Amino acid sequence: MKTCAPSSMVETLRWREGRLELIDQRVLPARVEFVACATADETARAIRDMVVRGAPAIGCAAAYGIALEAARLKNATPGEFSAGLGRAFDALAGSRPTAVNLFWALERMRDVIKASSAAARPADIAARLLDEAHRIAAADVAANRAMGGHGAALLADGMRVLTHCNAGALATAGHGTALGVIRSAVAAGKRISVIAGETRPFLQGARLTAWELTRDGIPVTLIADSMSGHLMSRGEIDAVIVGADRVAANGDVANKIGTYMIAVLARRHRIPFYVAAPLSTIDPRIACGDAIPIEERGAAEVRGHAGLEWAPAGVAVRNPAFDVTPAELVTALITEMGVMREPDRGRIAALFKPVNRDS
Amino acid sequence: MKTCAPSSMVETLRWREGRLELIDQRVLPARVEFVACATADETARAIRDMVVRGAPAIGCAAAYGIALEAARLKNATPGEFSAGLGRAFDALAGSRPTAVNLFWALERMRDVIKASSAAARPADIAARLLDEAHRIAAADVAANRAMGGHGAALLADGMRVLTHCNAGALATAGHGTALGVIRSAVAAGKRISVIAGETRPFLQGARLTAWELTRDGIPVTLIADSMSGHLMSRGEIDAVIVGADRVAANGDVANKIGTYMIAVLARRHRIPFYVAAPLSTIDPRIACGDAIPIEERGAAEVRGHAGLEWAPAGVAVRNPAFDVTPAELVTALITEMGVMREPDRGRIAALFKPVNRDS
Repeated sequence: MKTCAPSSMVETLRWREGRLELIDQRVLPARVEFVACATADETARAIRDMVVRGAPAIGCAAAYGIALEAARLKNATPGEFSAGLGRAFDALAGSRPTAVNLFWALERMRDVIKASSAAARPADIAARLLDEAHRIAAADVAANRAMGGHGAALLADGMRVLTHCNAGALATAGHGTALGVIRSAVAAGKRISVIAGETRPFLQGARLTAWELTRDGIPVTLIADSMSGHLMSRGEIDAVIVGADRVAANGDVANKIGTYMIAVLARRHRIPFYVAAPLSTIDPRIACGDAIPIEERGAAEVRGHAGLEWAPAGVAVRNPAFDVTPAELVTALITEMGVMREPDRGRIAALFKPVNRDS
Repeated sequence: MKTCAPSSMVETLRWREGRLELIDQRVLPARVEFVACATADETARAIRDMVVRGAPAIGCAAAYGIALEAARLKNATPGEFSAGLGRAFDALAGSRPTAVNLFWALERMRDVIKASSAAARPADIAARLLDEAHRIAAADVAANRAMGGHGAALLADGMRVLTHCNAGALATAGHGTALGVIRSAVAAGKRISVIAGETRPFLQGARLTAWELTRDGIPVTLIADSMSGHLMSRGEIDAVIVGADRVAANGDVANKIGTYMIAVLARRHRIPFYVAAPLSTIDPRIACGDAIPIEERGAAEVRGHAGLEWAPAGVAVRNPAFDVTPAELVTALITEMGVMREPDRGRIAALFKPVNRDS
């Protein structure tokens, strides 16, 4: 057995007996159940149906989806292997459009295949693909811990920090991005209390963030998404920290729907607005936020929750899953490289220079 | 049988066989049921439990609550009658704190008692109190129709109008305040489509506004409360119109939690933000919004809905039911007297001068 995260932590993804097991985020916190994926198609379906969600976790799951498919085809002919993997890449790339980590992880997996010699046997490539998936997951945890260390310096003892959606261990391979910063600040001895927006329609805040933080003993207060402006106006929020699904080259941030409204209110009330995102979430190929594809999900999520529908049957619905916060509203972007104040095109380009990632 | 609204309309309140019947707004739209109140205590409980909600409707219900109690005590001695009514006023005044229409209606009922001669029999006073309750309800519908006429001029053909909570027939004795303006614009031949925020936690938008508008054949699209900023940023909202629970003397508006966030976003995107409220919602005794009492409701509403709890058991919750939008963010206040652009202390004071209401 090989797990992707220390066993004391939330196991968002784990590798067991040749299968990818995902904690089922649709039924938390009522039930802690795992969904096992044995193929790329099953993994793509788990991503689409939000068994697993959160940009970094989606990236890790997609990498394992390729590894699963490669293992399944390891005794096929090279031609069958290549065709099967091609279909797997397509299925996973089509699962969700906004989080760029998905495409980033698939590209890393493609690079492994490209780097293999033409004579390599499918079984050898499959082994290398599984190693790469494990490396991606381990690197994600490491990036989150680094982000936590950098970002914790931004949070002072006693702060009341608003977060939105779930950018925690459940959104990553472990520790979390935004919640990772909070965890690291708490580990450093700071008393931080968290205000969690419930995050309709999927209720990641109410179900996942509240559950994660309660388990860790970090004080958390749940609010409806419409309440953060009121709390800001009454001086009850000291900082905002959120994750991201894709950061454009100019620093615009696509994140869970509702993030933009919080950012606008934070600016009005002079409250710092921080985004915690690893480099794998930054998409230097997208010039600005307007160009980021925004997923629209089905009507049922907005008409109710978990099978209970409270809206009139058949009422029209809009369900954009993400919005774009312009870079000018972001006080600082926290990555594994450090804290970037006032993110902009130049500062973000500089992040990628040392490794010459785009060449 | 005497009803408070034409039978073709939603019957938010109706007077039947000496009892007040309230459409149960906790179970709409799944079920259309009425709760009958025979006493002031039952009416106060219906207000507190949100069987009836919406500032004008609460005011009407409170007036009927006094009429019910007076009818119940009409054969009592004058001393018992007076003491019983005193308890009824206290019970109703303690039911909900923010909507000022409640206190306004109770004051009108008190004025009827004060205007009765010392020798008046309880039965005569009870009859006059019921007449006054009917007058308050009829005047509310008339005010809404007047507001509708004035406000409709602000909405152009083809506009996509965002509203929050339910400021419709269900929030009033009929026609509605914000939705009354939309109804009047549609009646005048304008094609208006409505975007309704679901309004967590009580879901007045998803359950009540969507139901009312669907019944009327007015196109309505339901969104989560966190989505309005995104739609504004994409140019998909042309105007905002909401009701109010209390307007302070300077024009600050207490309304359903989330209104303030919408107003801030509307200003950022240069979208007009209209408030429709009858004079009975304006409280000239409260200098500014900061002094308006904001009700905090119980945790269960935020932890889930209608008995389904999705948050971790026992998680801490904040549940302010209202917020305050500063007057500077209000493009116009629509009352039965007309459209007041840029409401401020002077313009609001002028509204009350002709009738010398404060003397």
